[in-house]
Amino acid sequence: MPVIVTGDDYLQSVRDRGTTLYMFGERIEEPADHPIIQPSINALKATYDLAIDEPELATAYSPIIDARVNRFLHVAESPQDLMDKHAMQRRLGQLTGTCFQRCTGLDTISVLHSATYDVDAKHGTSYHQRYLRFLAEAQRHNILIAVGMTDPKGDRGKPPHQQADPDLFLHVSGRNEHGVFLRGAKAHMTGGWNQHWICVVPTMNLGEADKDYAVVGIVPADAEGITYVYGRQASDTRALEPGTIDKGNAKFGGQEVLVHFDDVFVPWEHVMLDGETEFAQLLVSRFTAYHRASYVCKTGLGDVLTGAAAEIVDMNGVPGAAHIRDKLVEMVHLNETIYSSSIASAARATQLDSGIWMNDEMLSNVCKHNVTRFPYEIARLAQDLAGGIVATMPSEADLRSEEVGPLLERMLAGREDVPTEDRMRIIRLIENLTLGRNAVGYLTESLHGAGSPQGQRIQIWRGMDVELKKVLARKLAGIEESPT
Amino acid sequence: MPVIVTGDDYLQSVRDRGTTLYMFGERIEEPADHPIIQPSINALKATYDLAIDEPELATAYSPIIDARVNRFLHVAESPQDLMDKHAMQRRLGQLTGTCFQRCTGLDTISVLHSATYDVDAKHGTSYHQRYLRFLAEAQRHNILIAVGMTDPKGDRGKPPHQQADPDLFLHVSGRNEHGVFLRGAKAHMTGGWNQHWICVVPTMNLGEADKDYAVVGIVPADAEGITYVYGRQASDTRALEPGTIDKGNAKFGGQEVLVHFDDVFVPWEHVMLDGETEFAQLLVSRFTAYHRASYVCKTGLGDVLTGAAAEIVDMNGVPGAAHIRDKLVEMVHLNETIYSSSIASAARATQLDSGIWMNDEMLSNVCKHNVTRFPYEIARLAQDLAGGIVATMPSEADLRSEEVGPLLERMLAGREDVPTEDRMRIIRLIENLTLGRNAVGYLTESLHGAGSPQGQRIQIWRGMDVELKKVLARKLAGIEESPT
Amino acid sequence: MPVIVTGDDYLQSVRDRGTTLYMFGERIEEPADHPIIQPSINALKATYDLAIDEPELATAYSPIIDARVNRFLHVAESPQDLMDKHAMQRRLGQLTGTCFQRCTGLDTISVLHSATYDVDAKHGTSYHQRYLRFLAEAQRHNILIAVGMTDPKGDRGKPPHQQADPDLFLHVSGRNEHGVFLRGAKAHMTGGWNQHWICVVPTMNLGEADKDYAVVGIVPADAEGITYVYGRQASDTRALEPGTIDKGNAKFGGQEVLVHFDDVFVPWEHVMLDGETEFAQLLVSRFTAYHRASYVCKTGLGDVLTGAAAEIVDMNGVPGAAHIRDKLVEMVHLNETIYSSSIASAARATQLDSGIWMNDEMLSNVCKHNVTRFPYEIARLAQDLAGGIVATMPSEADLRSEEVGPLLERMLAGREDVPTEDRMRIIRLIENLTLGRNAVGYLTESLHGAGSPQGQRIQIWRGMDVELKKVLARKLAGIEESPT
Amino acid sequence: MPVIVTGDDYLQSVRDRGTTLYMFGERIEEPADHPIIQPSINALKATYDLAIDEPELATAYSPIIDARVNRFLHVAESPQDLMDKHAMQRRLGQLTGTCFQRCTGLDTISVLHSATYDVDAKHGTSYHQRYLRFLAEAQRHNILIAVGMTDPKGDRGKPPHQQADPDLFLHVSGRNEHGVFLRGAKAHMTGGWNQHWICVVPTMNLGEADKDYAVVGIVPADAEGITYVYGRQASDTRALEPGTIDKGNAKFGGQEVLVHFDDVFVPWEHVMLDGETEFAQLLVSRFTAYHRASYVCKTGLGDVLTGAAAEIVDMNGVPGAAHIRDKLVEMVHLNETIYSSSIASAARATQLDSGIWMNDEMLSNVCKHNVTRFPYEIARLAQDLAGGIVATMPSEADLRSEEVGPLLERMLAGREDVPTEDRMRIIRLIENLTLGRNAVGYLTESLHGAGSPQGQRIQIWRGMDVELKKVLARKLAGIEESPT
Repeated sequence: MPVIVTGDDYLQSVRDRGTTLYMFGERIEEPADHPIIQPSINALKATYDLAIDEPELATAYSPIIDARVNRFLHVAESPQDLMDKHAMQRRLGQLTGTCFQRCTGLDTISVLHSATYDVDAKHGTSYHQRYLRFLAEAQRHNILIAVGMTDPKGDRGKPPHQQADPDLFLHVSGRNEHGVFLRGAKAHMTGGWNQHWICVVPTMNLGEADKDYAVVGIVPADAEGITYVYGRQASDTRALEPGTIDKGNAKFGGQEVLVHFDDVFVPWEHVMLDGETEFAQLLVSRFTAYHRASYVCKTGLGDVLTGAAAEIVDMNGVPGAAHIRDKLVEMVHLNETIYSSSIASAARATQLDSGIWMNDEMLSNVCKHNVTRFPYEIARLAQDLAGGIVATMPSEADLRSEEVGPLLERMLAGREDVPTEDRMRIIRLIENLTLGRNAVGYLTESLHGAGSPQGQRIQIWRGMDVELKKVLARKLAGIEESPT
Repeated sequence: MPVIVTGDDYLQSVRDRGTTLYMFGERIEEPADHPIIQPSINALKATYDLAIDEPELATAYSPIIDARVNRFLHVAESPQDLMDKHAMQRRLGQLTGTCFQRCTGLDTISVLHSATYDVDAKHGTSYHQRYLRFLAEAQRHNILIAVGMTDPKGDRGKPPHQQADPDLFLHVSGRNEHGVFLRGAKAHMTGGWNQHWICVVPTMNLGEADKDYAVVGIVPADAEGITYVYGRQASDTRALEPGTIDKGNAKFGGQEVLVHFDDVFVPWEHVMLDGETEFAQLLVSRFTAYHRASYVCKTGLGDVLTGAAAEIVDMNGVPGAAHIRDKLVEMVHLNETIYSSSIASAARATQLDSGIWMNDEMLSNVCKHNVTRFPYEIARLAQDLAGGIVATMPSEADLRSEEVGPLLERMLAGREDVPTEDRMRIIRLIENLTLGRNAVGYLTESLHGAGSPQGQRIQIWRGMDVELKKVLARKLAGIEESPT
Repeated sequence: MPVIVTGDDYLQSVRDRGTTLYMFGERIEEPADHPIIQPSINALKATYDLAIDEPELATAYSPIIDARVNRFLHVAESPQDLMDKHAMQRRLGQLTGTCFQRCTGLDTISVLHSATYDVDAKHGTSYHQRYLRFLAEAQRHNILIAVGMTDPKGDRGKPPHQQADPDLFLHVSGRNEHGVFLRGAKAHMTGGWNQHWICVVPTMNLGEADKDYAVVGIVPADAEGITYVYGRQASDTRALEPGTIDKGNAKFGGQEVLVHFDDVFVPWEHVMLDGETEFAQLLVSRFTAYHRASYVCKTGLGDVLTGAAAEIVDMNGVPGAAHIRDKLVEMVHLNETIYSSSIASAARATQLDSGIWMNDEMLSNVCKHNVTRFPYEIARLAQDLAGGIVATMPSEADLRSEEVGPLLERMLAGREDVPTEDRMRIIRLIENLTLGRNAVGYLTESLHGAGSPQGQRIQIWRGMDVELKKVLARKLAGIEESPT
Repeated sequence: MPVIVTGDDYLQSVRDRGTTLYMFGERIEEPADHPIIQPSINALKATYDLAIDEPELATAYSPIIDARVNRFLHVAESPQDLMDKHAMQRRLGQLTGTCFQRCTGLDTISVLHSATYDVDAKHGTSYHQRYLRFLAEAQRHNILIAVGMTDPKGDRGKPPHQQADPDLFLHVSGRNEHGVFLRGAKAHMTGGWNQHWICVVPTMNLGEADKDYAVVGIVPADAEGITYVYGRQASDTRALEPGTIDKGNAKFGGQEVLVHFDDVFVPWEHVMLDGETEFAQLLVSRFTAYHRASYVCKTGLGDVLTGAAAEIVDMNGVPGAAHIRDKLVEMVHLNETIYSSSIASAARATQLDSGIWMNDEMLSNVCKHNVTRFPYEIARLAQDLAGGIVATMPSEADLRSEEVGPLLERMLAGREDVPTEDRMRIIRLIENLTLGRNAVGYLTESLHGAGSPQGQRIQIWRGMDVELKKVLARKLAGIEESPT
């Protein structure tokens, strides 16, 4: 594999791979050329371009290879590293207005650093060395790693081994002297196809009976036996239409795929957990400690949406009304509240045994939990400011038509000095983020990515140290026997 | 025009009308056959079918023609009439899961009853008799009346006569002995094309300089000079795809159109306001008194969405979890809170001089204001219970494909005894109501229909009788000179 | 017992009764003269005075004694009756700014009408006749009935018969040919001492092993064996201070007492349930159907608090600021939302077998559930508008002092033409309702009276008909085999 | 003045000062001995004790005097310093459950560091040297500095010089060669009397006409001409009652006083602004940048209240119910959200010209803005979990009484193994924080301290860089001419 430097290198790297990807029931010959897929590729491309445009922000010095690397491949050596990462994530959210799909990879290599170290410490395995070798290569080549965590799960009331179909959770289906075979699927993987490697990790706590499900393995995205089925998004087929207005955000979008593994082979050097079930829970909770703080990216989208709302009221001629300013302020207040918990979880990071730093778990969960609430309210406020036209505006084709175009030009006008087309573009961008393709990333993914709301509540319960709080209360209440 | 009785009569009535309707830059030959338009026709059809299926609920005795009429053409003669209307609206929301587009017509004939009466009383005009004649015909033929209220508005900081383009608000462009000519447009009209008549009314308070903008007129939907431009909705083109799953709600949808009037003629018998600017405000505030309570229809959609959420957790195998029940309860609590204000505004209705009853203005505004908030939270909770798959599920075409269909059949399964296809259908219905085509009606229209949130706040401010409240406070505070 | 007509008759009726009431560890000789108790008596007095001042509102014709009676003694014969009741409750809230303590009595005689009828129908008992005789007497004499529902409960994880102390739930401790004996206590009874009769009813579902706890009995408030212990309220002892400013609402307040029953005798004619455990749940759920809608009274307090907030911003010279108006509007919106569910639950009432009408259970629960939330937000907004001084203002004694009075007169001034004392009075009224004595009624009682929030959620769950909602969803999703 | 080391040194230091303090219209001979005042002294004492008990947390090295000093006298030399400060504030909130009144002093010396520096830079004055000399002394003696910012303000619609009474804002009433004289008052000063020095600063933007109001001066708390009038708090006189239960938090409380300045002399060395009106706004906004993040202290109170809620459900026997856990989780989530913004504003601090660091303004405002909302919801949830008894429980005197004590002992019991008195204590602590004396600090002060909610919204508006956000939106919408 060649070394990827520029965004264009990356574009080249995902072509001609011979992968099996289905969309709308058809196998797509060259996914890299498909208009529905391209926006997701562009979003990943932006992670390469930013490293060139703003290297301070988007690269970091890695002692592992003694060179600066893309920050998405850099494991945190300090709280500052985590804060810088979050700044970069917000920036990319601002620049793309979508999910740029590279955080899961970073958060997975982050958690594997400490997890492989800890498994080795207990079991005398050598996962950590394998890991470091892989990471060095990844950094040198500047590659992308998609992560498969969520299994299809079937009956949510049952553990993996009790499912009617054993493949409803991904598992080791065979082993030989060279490696293991993976069977099953990972659901709604973020940006799976458009990356270079896929790392599978368990999705939840596992018991002894689920030993074969406790596997971490890394395979090339074009490995034999992998089938991708593309996930639909709201208004996805607008990408197939001519023009750029109705797309809202014509350039950038997300990607989620169902990835099926049909006895896919993984050589031992890329296996980093195999049967150590007691570490599944640790993997998940550490991953979420990183990844729930990564949802700070949504504040970048919040910036875009707030800007779009401010722009539309300006175009409409009413920027100064008190209730309008008040709504913009509320949008920013909520957005910065989300940002706060991410930054705070980085500032309060702790160092793990393997030497790297991890976001404070409580604050990271708090961050994500606010992300499951506030973007919905921000989106509602944006629609409020945009007006009903956000859901009723005629198409770009109508604007371009000889018959009704001139009519729309006049009737969809705002303030005299604002081109009607510009006003339409902003309205479509708001639609895109609140009802359209990128609402998937801004809303639904904000709810469920890195774990659904109840997942955060469970972690908050676990971490809240209720006993200490009771002691504080008893002391102030004057209950005698209270220990400190 | 023939008398319409059944839903099928209605379908027939909108065919072959030779109207000018544009969509995606093309004139549509027969809109009644267009797959994107048909769901909106189906929704209106349901208002005819219900009158046959549940006549107690959906018809009422009209003394005007001494016969039972469709309740959508019946002006309220008691608070009970209003409560029955609201029950019918909720029921149709339950049956269609969309905006069924017939409430604006009813609410307009309701307001015109008292408004024409009051204008006549002041000006000695004879609008009320014209109105009653029209209404009798409407009731006899059981026809549909769309309402054009919202003007394009251009620069929102300026009144109609100061706009750069005088047509940015609809106005009388000429008068002769037979009638008036209308020029301008009405934006995002609800269900405009698929109805029989269009009634235009002013959208806001008007001053003397805006005299020509103070016009109420009723014209056939196929009148000469009318051009329709179809409004886009999220995922609208899924209606063009084969299959029924991905549509979410394959049968029902809403319709919003931009309607342009190019000197459309209205004979005097159908003119019911012409220059009496001081009544523009009254028209708007009485219309909103009726129409903001009509948003009770959204509780019917809320019932559907709650049912879908309850169904999906059941299909997933986890119906009994405490936090899941709690979310379903919250959805119902919010939904019934909306319902409350609608019913209360009917129960507290007042009788107007013309003899008909009008919803309590305060409570009607309160109803609508809750509608601008709670459906967004209900939708968020539904997505929470549905899981991330609501925004990442592969297409129906994939399910039908020979290659990946069997794979999806297995991987998208829930509880063993639930067909995968059924689970997909429920997920798509939730998508439809929260991110898709009917999110337009359930969310954005809930925000802006019948006036944006700030419109309700202004009405609440006007009606809240702050002086009485101050007196209450002063008395209890012991401030001496307080009058009662 | 004499017939009570005027408020003064009532005052007379509670004197010289020889009751045993403790407050601050002392037995109070004549509670009717105690300054802490008098405000609660005044609140009840207002229920008599209103019947004279506004008889349309506060009296109703009772066929039981063929005469108009105080509406607090009238069982609902129509939905209109319930709406009138709720109008009266809001009015009394406006006039007293506190809990006027007479609703529990009305709601209890309401539920006993149907419950005694239904028990008789099943068991052939004659409770209903006893009930009607008692009610006729109550109406003739215009007396007050306090209700003891909530038991002390001890370990909330255990039913009555498993408690360490059998008296932690009130129960029948003995029976003879003349009647039963009651033993135990009822906690935080609303206005217990200042009424004429006390009716005890079970607090929750009971099983066969709790047979003796399934008792309804009515005893005079001065019956032998009853001991009252007065409940503390925030800032309660300000009632003992001179002056009227610091009290906030010097005239009106609530009352909650712990009432202990030490083998109190109840003759059979006043026993209306004795061991029919299967009716305990019905009693509770019907009581809450009535009583949770009665919490509409809090909208009267909300009116007072909104008025006080509007008054203070006026006195401060900033009534017109947009954010201030917006907060007043929000207060009203929330307040009217509460009002809506109460009125709607009355308008949608159902008739029971005994002939009387009961509020719709779902909407009544929804009403109360909003009452557990919105008054807290209204109070927060009132404090916001009042400014920090609401919690830091010097005392009335300082204002009256020769040394610092003149200083405060100047320094606590608002707008020039507003007397400083008036401004202080309004501030104290806001304190009273948000942090002081009547915050008990406006906030905490709003949370727990008629059942804590979780109680409403359980009832909403029971009544929400989730199966019907699922059917609606399945039909629209196109799932074939769906029944209606 | 002696050097204060221990808490007891501090107690000694506020005795025998001959100050003029009024409470309830009486001059208090020795305020240090007054039971209503002592809890506020205890809270300040805790700031001394903590420096001894946890020196890492509560002291810091000051290069100004080359020694470790109490952290409340240490100006931030790094973001870490600010984070440590916030950790200390939360800890003191946990230990005292009240406002410990020392943050305003720290935040004022912090802002004066940079403000005096900047004024000097512009005007060639020597305020900064005066400041450094004062600070060095303050650090050496470990003294307390109260801050007077909020003026009485009179008619809020008018600036200082237009008020009917010129003293409604504090101002320079005279100048001589030795210094200036201050006249007017500062309202609801936090902990004014119980500190050693009082620093007055302007409360808002000032124009040229308000030159004499632009003054910063530091005077001893016992300076001639100062009169204190004590502010009332909810249930304040419980401090005068025997026993400790009903006080809720018997040891700790806050203090707010109205402080009147009757031509109080300030020597030039303690004058640090005099007429430079253009710096008034800067002083206020920098002060709020520090002080709004200091409201992290409320998370310490939130910890106590959460602990009390967890304790009471435990004592009641129902700790494990899902809805109860869920409410505790929500309390923690909201509390940690507040914490996040404080920590983030420290982590993102910026260095000022004078060399010290200041919290990020946006995040500090966001912190405080959440503080105006979440404690109210946390308090509501605590009352929910506590039950209605939180507002109706009989007094401690009743518990101690021979007659009804044994009865209460039984009837107020919870779980068998929990002493009734302990249960009462926890209930009273919850009352204290939600309706009682410390609700003043936890709720009302959270709303208005460091500026009312609208103050934060204005700052958020100013800092939100709406133009940048618009550019982001325009770019993604494809509007051509957008600059980067």
